[in-house]
Amino acid sequence: MSMATLEARESVRNLPTYRPPLGGRKGMRLDFNENTVGCSPQVLVRLRALSAEEVARYPEREPVEEVVAAHLGIKADELLLTNGVDEAIHLLCETFLEPGDEALIVVPTFAMYEISAGATGARVIAIPAGEDFLFPTADLLSRITPRTRLIAIANPNNPTGAVAEPADLVEIVRRAAQSAILIDEAYFEFYGKTLLPQWRDLPNLFIARTFSKAYGMASLRIGVLAGNAAHISQVQRVCSPYNVNGVALACLPAALQEQDYIRKYVDQVRQGREELQNEFGKRGIRYWSSQANFVLAHFGRLNNAFIRSMRRRGILIRDRSRDHGCEGCVRITVGTAEQTSLLLKSLRQTLEGIDSEKAATK
Amino acid sequence: MSMATLEARESVRNLPTYRPPLGGRKGMRLDFNENTVGCSPQVLVRLRALSAEEVARYPEREPVEEVVAAHLGIKADELLLTNGVDEAIHLLCETFLEPGDEALIVVPTFAMYEISAGATGARVIAIPAGEDFLFPTADLLSRITPRTRLIAIANPNNPTGAVAEPADLVEIVRRAAQSAILIDEAYFEFYGKTLLPQWRDLPNLFIARTFSKAYGMASLRIGVLAGNAAHISQVQRVCSPYNVNGVALACLPAALQEQDYIRKYVDQVRQGREELQNEFGKRGIRYWSSQANFVLAHFGRLNNAFIRSMRRRGILIRDRSRDHGCEGCVRITVGTAEQTSLLLKSLRQTLEGIDSEKAATK
Repeated sequence: MSMATLEARESVRNLPTYRPPLGGRKGMRLDFNENTVGCSPQVLVRLRALSAEEVARYPEREPVEEVVAAHLGIKADELLLTNGVDEAIHLLCETFLEPGDEALIVVPTFAMYEISAGATGARVIAIPAGEDFLFPTADLLSRITPRTRLIAIANPNNPTGAVAEPADLVEIVRRAAQSAILIDEAYFEFYGKTLLPQWRDLPNLFIARTFSKAYGMASLRIGVLAGNAAHISQVQRVCSPYNVNGVALACLPAALQEQDYIRKYVDQVRQGREELQNEFGKRGIRYWSSQANFVLAHFGRLNNAFIRSMRRRGILIRDRSRDHGCEGCVRITVGTAEQTSLLLKSLRQTLEGIDSEKAATK
Repeated sequence: MSMATLEARESVRNLPTYRPPLGGRKGMRLDFNENTVGCSPQVLVRLRALSAEEVARYPEREPVEEVVAAHLGIKADELLLTNGVDEAIHLLCETFLEPGDEALIVVPTFAMYEISAGATGARVIAIPAGEDFLFPTADLLSRITPRTRLIAIANPNNPTGAVAEPADLVEIVRRAAQSAILIDEAYFEFYGKTLLPQWRDLPNLFIARTFSKAYGMASLRIGVLAGNAAHISQVQRVCSPYNVNGVALACLPAALQEQDYIRKYVDQVRQGREELQNEFGKRGIRYWSSQANFVLAHFGRLNNAFIRSMRRRGILIRDRSRDHGCEGCVRITVGTAEQTSLLLKSLRQTLEGIDSEKAATK
């Protein structure tokens, strides 16, 4: 190597870029799977009670880790609070993956697995989901090798809303004992099933949770990585002691106390999800049954026209055409009952508009 | 490699741990080099104006990057906002270092350089500062090899308050053209000199700034990494699009507008630093002349007794005995004029108490 100019590592230069379309989000935000109404009232009260002096202090993560651990029924040293789940993914990759290792992901899925795993110099092996985005258990099992050091699975998956059977996930965890297995349960509240109780028997299992979705705190950036205490302490080594900001830490205990608020919101989302899926079914629009707070639907050639038309009606939804197997698909976040009514109304109007355009151009 | 159990990478298992003593910080907080009075009033106004709906949204970094770039007199694509400077360090290491590379640091210094560089599997070479913590330019230059891919320098340095000559830093940047050079200017406001105007001629130079110190926003976690646009875009590849929380992003423009508030605070700190150093000089206590918002002083065997006695008087200061060359040293943050009066009063009482204890035990 010569005294050349500075260059990023090859693994970094080869990374895909991930720039979500955040700019100019005016309207009903059904494009980022956020909570569509906002954080709970007590979170806002706590946030607004912060003093200038508290803002000036370095945040202290550990007391809040005790609170979250109690909420999850685990011990404080069995979890790490992170700067959103993105950081949990990043730290897991950095702790366990090195050049030459293999990381397995199922596609389509959340973009950050490939980015954080690829950045380490590990080889990222993308296993396509089966027909109708069915979780490819057998294919995934067949790709496990001694070099497999990370398997990242979103369950429910994003952008499909599909889930894997708990027994299949446990089988994967057992069959890849030398690998960290991340089950990303960011959408847990909308699904209800978790692998969390399993991990004491499965030391290589990690569970991620977020407060960005059901809890309505995406702006505050706070996630949880839970797992075996010895492994969590390794992950903690690569982590800044100040990774989670003090506003998130101040607000999180308040958020956890308002379970009623979350439950009511989640109930509305589940109900709205059914209504939206029914509407798609009635109209013969292909969709995938979802366990999350969004539904993926296929509009094919009309996808862009549909998204634009919905935007004109003040509803933001997300094109997922560039995801593996999702060409012509849109992902629609589901919000409250009222928002779902509005969504369905706009959806009908838009579809009728598109139908008459089609008729006119025939 | 067998189908063994999960283990962290060797480079991670070998990392030093960094757990700052954050628990139970009651009193005058002169232990973490924070702003000792708090963020500016308009920051608090902005923070308290956040709505539940804003809390629920994913943060959008880019518009605020425009504002910070204008403040620094650079372009938006020449900087990246980060989750504190800790994340800037972390991302730089991840972008440029791989196993087998070499990273140079000068010790004693801020702990996170060694941790983030070491985590990549690179070899971290610690170059001891010279007599009186003089910046070891010649030693550092002599350790640059074709494998040097990162050099991290805090200027002013922490915990010593010492600075390097700009010309020496430029020489290092030029002589290691294949390496990323991070000049961490976290304490810039208390010093006044910067290498920022230089970096257009030095594409391998990166400058970090923070809003955790003079600006009093440590809780919000926001830092800046500035550098060549092409290199910044590489660093951005490994970074989450949501790395900086929305509260920090909402408040930062307000903070930048209140330069008077910062200037008044910084003036008081500089004045207090002189007073504290004079007091040490008069009493024959060894100290190191500082360009930051803290002073390192040597109490030798009495260091712990001094720290405990100050704590009893309600003043928190930080033992730095475990830092390279700092045995028996304490680091004292300097705050406002009023706080400095209190500090000096307690310092005198404590030293007199220690003197009489010493006399009594003779």
